[in-house]
Amino acid sequence: MTQLRYAVIGTGALGGFYGGMLAKTGKDVHFLFNRDFETVQKNGLIIDSVLGNYQIQHGNFYHETAKMPLCDVVLVCLKTTANHLLKKMLPPLLHKDTCVILIQNGLGMEQALAEDFPSIAIAGGLAFICSSKFAPGHITHMDYGKLTLGSYSGENKTLLKQICDDLISAGVEAELSEDLALSRWKKLVWNVPYNGLCVVMNSSTEQLMHHTQTFSLIRDMMLEVILAAQACGNNISERFAQVMLDSTNVMKPYAPSMKLDFDNHRPLEIKAIYSNPLAAAKQVGIDMPKVHMLEQQLCFCMDSYTSNDVK
Amino acid sequence: MTQLRYAVIGTGALGGFYGGMLAKTGKDVHFLFNRDFETVQKNGLIIDSVLGNYQIQHGNFYHETAKMPLCDVVLVCLKTTANHLLKKMLPPLLHKDTCVILIQNGLGMEQALAEDFPSIAIAGGLAFICSSKFAPGHITHMDYGKLTLGSYSGENKTLLKQICDDLISAGVEAELSEDLALSRWKKLVWNVPYNGLCVVMNSSTEQLMHHTQTFSLIRDMMLEVILAAQACGNNISERFAQVMLDSTNVMKPYAPSMKLDFDNHRPLEIKAIYSNPLAAAKQVGIDMPKVHMLEQQLCFCMDSYTSNDVK
Repeated sequence: MTQLRYAVIGTGALGGFYGGMLAKTGKDVHFLFNRDFETVQKNGLIIDSVLGNYQIQHGNFYHETAKMPLCDVVLVCLKTTANHLLKKMLPPLLHKDTCVILIQNGLGMEQALAEDFPSIAIAGGLAFICSSKFAPGHITHMDYGKLTLGSYSGENKTLLKQICDDLISAGVEAELSEDLALSRWKKLVWNVPYNGLCVVMNSSTEQLMHHTQTFSLIRDMMLEVILAAQACGNNISERFAQVMLDSTNVMKPYAPSMKLDFDNHRPLEIKAIYSNPLAAAKQVGIDMPKVHMLEQQLCFCMDSYTSNDVK
Repeated sequence: MTQLRYAVIGTGALGGFYGGMLAKTGKDVHFLFNRDFETVQKNGLIIDSVLGNYQIQHGNFYHETAKMPLCDVVLVCLKTTANHLLKKMLPPLLHKDTCVILIQNGLGMEQALAEDFPSIAIAGGLAFICSSKFAPGHITHMDYGKLTLGSYSGENKTLLKQICDDLISAGVEAELSEDLALSRWKKLVWNVPYNGLCVVMNSSTEQLMHHTQTFSLIRDMMLEVILAAQACGNNISERFAQVMLDSTNVMKPYAPSMKLDFDNHRPLEIKAIYSNPLAAAKQVGIDMPKVHMLEQQLCFCMDSYTSNDVK
């Protein structure tokens, strides 16, 4: 098999880490930057990782996709709030067999992409990682790192296997999911309570877990998500809530991505993580009242700064 | 009919106003103060009201109920969070026909009092008023003022009528309720969403009403309360939610009492306004998921300071 050419769209906490790992082991990786472009041209892409620190110097760094080559794999590592940009960004990268992988949280992003690009191969990726952008062009990877890949369009399984092998040989814990929807719902079981509650309650996962009432609330929401997932045809047991609670209890204190977005007055991924799952559940007749309330509160929180800020 | 002797237990925003109005018109009113006692002995009780400013000088001011006379009417204007003190405070005031009126928000307070004092006449009062304690012994009454009185024990209707007449002749808009439980639930329709959400979202009623999502959330909670009230046997129409929303829209921007309590790091009336209605609803098989979530969030909010403060 020939070597795959990768594009990383959005080189931040996720794209910087996964793309960096691939580039470090000699894969052909092309990185798109937005505001950090000038910094990385000068300093390179710096990755401080629990797996070892390294830098990508004089890499294939770009400021616009129009200057990038055609790629076999496009790792989309943008926030979902920027997905409306993909319609213009992706075409310069695509050949007839390109696979676009959305490494994002939430639900419904692949479907939206398929509406704009009906003929391309689409997959989803789920990152189980504690990583953040410490400074422009400077990623800090604190813990974990597993990446789960699953096909959306169903036509790209051989390619996904090759990508998975590339990642594993680059030192990333990667695996294939046979059921992307199930994997997305399982990740929502964690993301729905913790991301939003950390914002609304202005607290860390640890503080929420240590208070009886918010601990109960987290479990209530996990069960709402699991019941909705089941009604949507996914095989998740209610016991999965306890697995998530237990694994969170042994995590280091951690600010979920939405809390970081909120603290930095960035748009929140409300649509992907809340509105889309709520709509999917409603379609099969299921309410998630506490999840809905969190969505309502988050919209208020976000508009408290986006209506005042000039970004 | 002989003139009634009144005790005001807790001379703050409510007790200061209603007791003050009665005293101003020559009624026999005896006021209990806690921390403000020395201030009012020196300066009197100062009331700045939209109905006219006045002072009660050299009034019947007390620091403990043991020094107060037997009274015909006891107006309890404490926060419900202090109701555990009533067991010790009330006995010096009570003769066999004394009526104790709990002018408080929430549900279940009369029942709790009746358990400690099974033989006394008990009533409830609902204050529709914008009033606050501006400084020690200094009340500011900004708007409204209606007081609704209803019998709990059912034995004191003639006396309640006389109290109502005293209040009206003192310039207070007072009325009798034929159904205290119904009146309490109707007041909860307002108190449940606004009190808690102003705390959790750190905002005013006006800000919450001006955002589409929190406006919806307020209405959702009102409907949960109305459905619970109906299931508990109260005749409230779902249209009552719209009445409450409309009347809030024309209110001046207003911080509910729980927001003032929170900002001053005082205990929050979570039990009376949330836990007791939730328990009553559960007894008849009704969940109020969004109200429950607000209770869970409020417990977290309150413990964020009560666990650190020395009060």
